[in-house]
Amino acid sequence: MLKNRQITLASHAHGVPQVDNFSMIETPVPTPGAGQFLIRNLYFSLEPAIRGWLEGKANYFEPIPLGGVVRGPSVGRVIESNNPDYAVGDIVFALNQWEDYSICNADTILLEKLQPQDDTPLSWYVGPLGGSGTTAYVGLHEIGHIKAGQTVVVSAAAGATGSMVGQIAKQRGCRVIGIVGSDAKAQMLVDDFGFDGAINYNTCTDITAAVMAQAPDGVDIYFDNVGGPILNAMLLTMKVQGRIVCCGMISDYNRTENPNPITNLWEVVARQLTMQGFLLFTYHDQVPAAQAQLAEWITSGKIKVLEHITKGIANTPAAFCELMSGKTTGKALVQLDLPEEQ
Amino acid sequence: MLKNRQITLASHAHGVPQVDNFSMIETPVPTPGAGQFLIRNLYFSLEPAIRGWLEGKANYFEPIPLGGVVRGPSVGRVIESNNPDYAVGDIVFALNQWEDYSICNADTILLEKLQPQDDTPLSWYVGPLGGSGTTAYVGLHEIGHIKAGQTVVVSAAAGATGSMVGQIAKQRGCRVIGIVGSDAKAQMLVDDFGFDGAINYNTCTDITAAVMAQAPDGVDIYFDNVGGPILNAMLLTMKVQGRIVCCGMISDYNRTENPNPITNLWEVVARQLTMQGFLLFTYHDQVPAAQAQLAEWITSGKIKVLEHITKGIANTPAAFCELMSGKTTGKALVQLDLPEEQ
Repeated sequence: MLKNRQITLASHAHGVPQVDNFSMIETPVPTPGAGQFLIRNLYFSLEPAIRGWLEGKANYFEPIPLGGVVRGPSVGRVIESNNPDYAVGDIVFALNQWEDYSICNADTILLEKLQPQDDTPLSWYVGPLGGSGTTAYVGLHEIGHIKAGQTVVVSAAAGATGSMVGQIAKQRGCRVIGIVGSDAKAQMLVDDFGFDGAINYNTCTDITAAVMAQAPDGVDIYFDNVGGPILNAMLLTMKVQGRIVCCGMISDYNRTENPNPITNLWEVVARQLTMQGFLLFTYHDQVPAAQAQLAEWITSGKIKVLEHITKGIANTPAAFCELMSGKTTGKALVQLDLPEEQ
Repeated sequence: MLKNRQITLASHAHGVPQVDNFSMIETPVPTPGAGQFLIRNLYFSLEPAIRGWLEGKANYFEPIPLGGVVRGPSVGRVIESNNPDYAVGDIVFALNQWEDYSICNADTILLEKLQPQDDTPLSWYVGPLGGSGTTAYVGLHEIGHIKAGQTVVVSAAAGATGSMVGQIAKQRGCRVIGIVGSDAKAQMLVDDFGFDGAINYNTCTDITAAVMAQAPDGVDIYFDNVGGPILNAMLLTMKVQGRIVCCGMISDYNRTENPNPITNLWEVVARQLTMQGFLLFTYHDQVPAAQAQLAEWITSGKIKVLEHITKGIANTPAAFCELMSGKTTGKALVQLDLPEEQ
């Protein structure tokens, strides 16, 4: 009988999550009820947002209970269906759980039936064509109101979302500066991803001055993935009526009890800034158009894909902890092993 | 020969400004050049924003130099003119200086020719029909996107702008809660100004809980005049996609070297909030419509005017220091003495 391997929350995370915050259990493969369908998960999308659900406190989703299966986005194949809209063989993206098999229905959050092209790796649908890419696209357009000729700065710029933000902004005719945590990442952004400049925050003593040196007229759009001291420094670089796209604040995710203080908010008034937070699911109806544009750019080679793939469901906790320690570049994902097909 | 009494900056302010930060000098009344006109100032509008110009550091305006005349909005009468658009006898509002006589031209910041009704006190044009009222109106509509049925919270709610914010929001069919610094102010807001509730932050140990007790479903619009700990607490009360109108951060004006830290900015992402700063001059073209609506509400008794009038130019520094110590309610202004007419 097939088993469903599931990664559960063994203990609440404090600080950088550790592999012993997680356990793996085996349960029977569930049977879909009326209107439901069963998917075989193929890829997990590892995302910093998941960190926010591991402490037992509600944020925009309920926390994951101790012993509960960890929630996370996945791409999978429908293998059994009681829903006429989802046939066996369909490929779907959804907010599922870290497990081999998930039950979905029409109301599953972020559910989307994918139309993968033959030559498009499925993994791209959790990264550049999935939440990371579409978050970057929607954030720049809907929240950032991006226009050609603007100066765009993005933090966590070598990450899944940040690397897409910078490349999309370049396609829109902007000047792009990335903020990253190592010289190697900075070099990669400029050499391989077409960024106009990059700053290593770990060796830079004055982020504000470093940005202003590369953008003397100031910054139109700051796409913020990190919050904390970098956001604080960026507030001093913004042009009048500039926009800060608040996508994430990863610098605080490992220290939610003691978040980094922000002291430069007066600039929001003095420079007439707009700081706006957003979550992708609010803009779900714009995802297909974003995906179509991203697919065109990627297949034509204008935007490069950067992935960090870990294989095997059992390695999911270690891969997630690696992501949250800032060591990865590009989209972190897990490619599931499929013992039933071997 | 007529003299021009001028209030100058004698020393930079640190903390709450003191009267000895200012001096009064006498200079000759200036003569208007080509295109210029001379006004006799009648009222000074005392505004917290002026505090930001007293430390020798640029914010959205240049700082006032030591020995320079203090910049501030006024209402005055044209008494000599080389500009065909401004006739002797016209009443004008503009960003002038703390002095008996000011030179203006068509480019003077905030310059506006007033059309005072016979029964409208001129002082109202520096308060409810001037910058305070129009700031409240523009902030609620352009930045707050106010709609009937919403819950609106305003800080410094007994002040010139705050008392107008609450009353305008009531006219728009909203539920309104004011945050103030004394029980007497709180009582006044509810009893005299129609607020639905008020909170004294000096005796309240948990602003978040106090607001949530009065608005269990959360807050749609927070009109922020204070920044600091109250803004930090309000971030935890906002509804999803709520809007924070960043009008001022007076809690930091007396401590610009050591601003209050904000630690709850994660809520901007999690609740998908918009925090937007604005300065009235950016929305100058909307001021006439705002004034017309405010005048209708005020003359019909739907909105009450609350003024704190100090008489005599020599008392301007003391009146400003009183404002910045949080002791006044309503619009703080100086009614100039006019020795030349006595």
